[in-house]
Amino acid sequence: MRAMGIDPGTAICGFGVIDADGSRLKPVTYGTIQTTPDHTDAERLVMLFDGLNELYRKYKPDVIGVEQLFFNRNVTTAITVGQARGIILLTAQQAGIPILEFSPLQVKQGVTGYGRATKDQVIDMTMRLLGIRQKIKPDDAADGLAMAIYAIYSSHSMSLKRKVQL
Amino acid sequence: MRAMGIDPGTAICGFGVIDADGSRLKPVTYGTIQTTPDHTDAERLVMLFDGLNELYRKYKPDVIGVEQLFFNRNVTTAITVGQARGIILLTAQQAGIPILEFSPLQVKQGVTGYGRATKDQVIDMTMRLLGIRQKIKPDDAADGLAMAIYAIYSSHSMSLKRKVQL
Repeated sequence: MRAMGIDPGTAICGFGVIDADGSRLKPVTYGTIQTTPDHTDAERLVMLFDGLNELYRKYKPDVIGVEQLFFNRNVTTAITVGQARGIILLTAQQAGIPILEFSPLQVKQGVTGYGRATKDQVIDMTMRLLGIRQKIKPDDAADGLAMAIYAIYSSHSMSLKRKVQL
Repeated sequence: MRAMGIDPGTAICGFGVIDADGSRLKPVTYGTIQTTPDHTDAERLVMLFDGLNELYRKYKPDVIGVEQLFFNRNVTTAITVGQARGIILLTAQQAGIPILEFSPLQVKQGVTGYGRATKDQVIDMTMRLLGIRQKIKPDDAADGLAMAIYAIYSSHSMSLKRKVQL
């Protein structure tokens, strides 16, 4: 099973793709789609649209994980990130890839076993689980990988639940 | 010149299309794209994407007007509306239609001549300017028309400014 996690943003959108073979996790790729402020918002959203579709075509994820957004930050940021998140949901749906949505708390809890883990602890555990030794940069890409891990975990628990229901 | 104004929303997205012939304004169409909560957010964004593209194909606007979002409302709403706004910007840019963005205050001021006009006053003036006698429903469609009017006004003043600069 192959999962892709995406961390929404217009300036920088992080992603991570991992393969799960039983309980073994293997990183496939990670990185960011970046756009510069010399483009309009609309142009940047088209770049994001094109970049995501290219990633889906190239890596063919079975499932896409994306965080629900709960902001303490300002509302203008929420709108901008919401715009980028809209493109992620749109493209995933158009590509026919199932979308899993979860809270930042669930990802923290799921990846580190501890809901109050710091950002660095999540990155550290993400690297350990995937056997990545070199520090993942930038954080947005690490976030993408952490979401991909949690997408795998939550898919597994969903299938387990289904099995129990039978 | 034909302008289309769009009022972003996932549940209900209002639009209005008008033609300007000199200083005369003529309504072409108005209405809403609506989606129901029995669909996922991603499915609703695809419906919005498809609906907007159909409108662009059918009515071929020369320019699209959309409001900048300044919310006093809660952040969750800002994210949802941001997602819908992302699809509007994306589709307009993909269709090669110029996008004009302006504040709700500019629209109020531009349409009624009075920045503190109430919603009803804006709708009333929109109807008068377009010679529409039957009450426009719902408000989202009227908002779309008001934005289309302001898109015309601001395009005209932009071209005037350019002429002055020569």
